[in-house]
Amino acid sequence: MDRIIIEARVNELATRNGNPHVPFLPGEIIADAKACHDAGAAIVHYHGRGGDGAPDHSAEFYLETNAGIRAGSDILIHPTLGYVANDADAMGRFAAVEEMMKSAETAPDFAPMDCGSVNVDWWNPETGRYDTTDLIYKNSTGTLMHFAERIAHHGLKPYLVSWNVSFTRQIEQFLKLGVLTAPAYICFCLTDEIIFAGHPGTVAGLDAHTPFLPQDYRCVWTVVNYKGDLFQLTEKIIREGGHISIGLGDYAYRDGARNLTNAEVIERVVAQARALGREPASVAETRQILQMPAVRIAA
Amino acid sequence: MDRIIIEARVNELATRNGNPHVPFLPGEIIADAKACHDAGAAIVHYHGRGGDGAPDHSAEFYLETNAGIRAGSDILIHPTLGYVANDADAMGRFAAVEEMMKSAETAPDFAPMDCGSVNVDWWNPETGRYDTTDLIYKNSTGTLMHFAERIAHHGLKPYLVSWNVSFTRQIEQFLKLGVLTAPAYICFCLTDEIIFAGHPGTVAGLDAHTPFLPQDYRCVWTVVNYKGDLFQLTEKIIREGGHISIGLGDYAYRDGARNLTNAEVIERVVAQARALGREPASVAETRQILQMPAVRIAA
Repeated sequence: MDRIIIEARVNELATRNGNPHVPFLPGEIIADAKACHDAGAAIVHYHGRGGDGAPDHSAEFYLETNAGIRAGSDILIHPTLGYVANDADAMGRFAAVEEMMKSAETAPDFAPMDCGSVNVDWWNPETGRYDTTDLIYKNSTGTLMHFAERIAHHGLKPYLVSWNVSFTRQIEQFLKLGVLTAPAYICFCLTDEIIFAGHPGTVAGLDAHTPFLPQDYRCVWTVVNYKGDLFQLTEKIIREGGHISIGLGDYAYRDGARNLTNAEVIERVVAQARALGREPASVAETRQILQMPAVRIAA
Repeated sequence: MDRIIIEARVNELATRNGNPHVPFLPGEIIADAKACHDAGAAIVHYHGRGGDGAPDHSAEFYLETNAGIRAGSDILIHPTLGYVANDADAMGRFAAVEEMMKSAETAPDFAPMDCGSVNVDWWNPETGRYDTTDLIYKNSTGTLMHFAERIAHHGLKPYLVSWNVSFTRQIEQFLKLGVLTAPAYICFCLTDEIIFAGHPGTVAGLDAHTPFLPQDYRCVWTVVNYKGDLFQLTEKIIREGGHISIGLGDYAYRDGARNLTNAEVIERVVAQARALGREPASVAETRQILQMPAVRIAA
């Protein structure tokens, strides 16, 4: 079976209450990216964060962090466009990527497109209530077309996120339109515990996604469990030919009482994949599997 | 097996290009509601439309139409809140229902809650392009809570629409919160041909919905195919204990070259259900299955 692409999702918007190893600042993210690469990850995904953990979507944060990651290894870089924390218009949400593209040292390899809209309010299991009631993650068709055009212009690979079947069907229409080209790299974003915006992180949850992968285009799929324990599903994903995106950004992974680091989470995925007959894909192999274009830096 | 609840979806935003029998004006909708009731439908769902087919969300339209439907039969009335054609705030979208609740002659029996947000752009199969690129059907958690509170206040039954698993999971959280009470009446809105916002109208599309019905609460489910031929699935739905919501609002149903009327579509569902051992539920039986509350008219 194909080699398995492992992506380290190092921080997202996670606090350190659950696990103190969540990296916030550029130096912390850079160190984690190197450690995850050495453990077998081919891609690193991160969000800009301040020292207090608050989102920091300044271009400076991404320029410094990308350059530091590049200096440490060849791991592929997948930054965020800001999620609901950055409710700007399409141009505004892509502005940080435009800045990153001014130099080979700071350019990423992927840019994400969450291919639809969905309510993303936070559920509080302790109170049994919603902590928020107004968060709609809005990605209009027009906004997504703008992202796709800019991503293609820069020679980046679109990282296509699907929260439910409506998203996957929009990806299929974009492939028909030529807005996206195959192979499509699609991430099924499952969710649990404190957010119910995606399918649950169960066998049924994944089995309700994969039948809708566009049949007429080659698709490569990976799975996230945003706020749940993806290890409940990793064996199934590995056996079915999927890829794995995991890290402390999604879940406070532990071994008994001991908090795992991002690199330790990656080591566990690698060990399980090898036991089931799949070697982790190197960066070069990942580029080949995804037929990644050559990044174009503006003169 | 339980009796089957059949709902006539008489017009939605459908044009008469596909089938000239789509009712627009109050008199046309009133006549169709009576004919569908006599054919075996227990619920009628309609949208206010002008003589040219454009949406008409004035309270007057709904008052006149509801009163006329009431005078013709006891069919249960399920009006729209306006969909994306009425992009007002939560109070604004519910304003027409508040007007309807001032008299028993004009009060409906259901009010809809589309329990989430989703991109709902129109695809044009002839050009292979989107006709719109900015339509996000926005129903925030807070807006839905407002609808649920007003629906309960008036003694109406919430008609819960799920376009994908994210919607169904939000319904489950609302049941946990007590924002909604069991039995929940949930409509799986499948979509095809010119809109891809829901699951496809296939066996796989329906099978990716039903496993996520809230397990701890009694749920009654019905199925729509918005812009596709629901008869591809009616046998499966009937056999699995689901209910059916169908009409010219969704699809230009024909028999060869002959355009069917809404009542003829209902007759076909009734015949198929009977052949498979399920009698159509009367209005009284529908009230019992759904444990419908008593409508409360303000003094």
